[in-house]
Amino acid sequence: MARFRITVEYNGAAYCGWQRQKNGRAVQEVLEDALATVLQQPVTLTGSGRTDAGVHAMGQVAHFDADTALMPDKILLAANSMLPEDVRIVAAEEAAPDFHAQYGAKRKTYQYRTYVSHVLHPLKAPFAERIQPPLHIEKMREGAALLVGVHDFAAFSSADRTVKTTVREIFRLDICAAGEDIIFEVEGNGFLYNMVRILVGTLVYLGKGKISLSDIETMLKTGDRTLGGKTYPAKGLSLKRVDYQ
Amino acid sequence: MARFRITVEYNGAAYCGWQRQKNGRAVQEVLEDALATVLQQPVTLTGSGRTDAGVHAMGQVAHFDADTALMPDKILLAANSMLPEDVRIVAAEEAAPDFHAQYGAKRKTYQYRTYVSHVLHPLKAPFAERIQPPLHIEKMREGAALLVGVHDFAAFSSADRTVKTTVREIFRLDICAAGEDIIFEVEGNGFLYNMVRILVGTLVYLGKGKISLSDIETMLKTGDRTLGGKTYPAKGLSLKRVDYQ
Repeated sequence: MARFRITVEYNGAAYCGWQRQKNGRAVQEVLEDALATVLQQPVTLTGSGRTDAGVHAMGQVAHFDADTALMPDKILLAANSMLPEDVRIVAAEEAAPDFHAQYGAKRKTYQYRTYVSHVLHPLKAPFAERIQPPLHIEKMREGAALLVGVHDFAAFSSADRTVKTTVREIFRLDICAAGEDIIFEVEGNGFLYNMVRILVGTLVYLGKGKISLSDIETMLKTGDRTLGGKTYPAKGLSLKRVDYQ
Repeated sequence: MARFRITVEYNGAAYCGWQRQKNGRAVQEVLEDALATVLQQPVTLTGSGRTDAGVHAMGQVAHFDADTALMPDKILLAANSMLPEDVRIVAAEEAAPDFHAQYGAKRKTYQYRTYVSHVLHPLKAPFAERIQPPLHIEKMREGAALLVGVHDFAAFSSADRTVKTTVREIFRLDICAAGEDIIFEVEGNGFLYNMVRILVGTLVYLGKGKISLSDIETMLKTGDRTLGGKTYPAKGLSLKRVDYQ
């Protein structure tokens, strides 16, 4: 029995999310099915965490155990040849027996893609959310700076939470502007439910002058979700990478 | 009666192409339907040219005549509110009565998106074709230089042609490499059927060492299509812009 670590890229548009559900097809499910066929044994994947319906990943990480003589690169090739075009294993390796994709995750990086335009752009729409101009990007960067660090992010997560604590650390929250494209990239030690999509929605409200920097400070102090912006849609969000050290 | 010029962006994945067909939904058709509803009169669009099934556009240009008091920006907003998310009018203006989207087109620019990777990337796949490494980019640039200028491009078009001449001028054929992404951008006074997709396929064959620079010279001299590379798929191709002067 050996433990394997895989890195997975997927277009989440057609999926109910990473995790197996009663209704709808999950990314985990199509991967487990492909790996079970290749390895001729049942395979259970443990991902670094869930991603919601419609959310994408460039670097989701998962582990599984299997009794096989196949090398990781052969498993990758064989599984990819069976997967639908919207899911691919982009790296596979044998891992230490105690490697755990969920509990071992030290940092995650998410990317959220937007563009500032008066009209919707059909070629950007599948992977990015439109923002109506004008947008004050420097103001959003000031807001992002307030969010970096160790904070109670209760105000930046959706109401039904099962987590013990809403304190998280954001290491980095960059806002890259290239023409009308604005990409948010946020790296942290963990994220609450809908946290990235609420962070983006709130920074966009700031950039549009609907809220102020002091509103963000108040959100961090009071945990009041109602002060923030809307939860931005899933299609703009991608899990970019997961780090284990 | 006034003549209007519109610039259209579309994701061609769900369409049988620009032009109305007996079978399948055409981009022209959904635009004409939306404009007819807005303007409360039948509308006939004349595009700068056809795009094939699955081909995208960032800057297709079309004209139509209408008897209306509505300003172009109102027509744009109203039509866009009725269009599916994969088609949008991105600019609209009143044009000179003799403006003709097809006959007046002086230059067209197409973009073809590829990426060089051992694995398919689900987030790139909808709009770019994968190339298996290795790929010799400098060699492709040498091939591109041979294609710039006035040439008989018979060898770079699909067999059933109704055109009078297969001579065209390519003003520019750039190959931009950014990481694994390789974008071909070609500007010319006109393009034959499948010409851009065959140009890309042939340059990729060159970059993979399957053909030589002298094969490209022979293709230009003899018109022999069989020497070239495969016709690359529609999904990587976008009509970027059309110029009228």
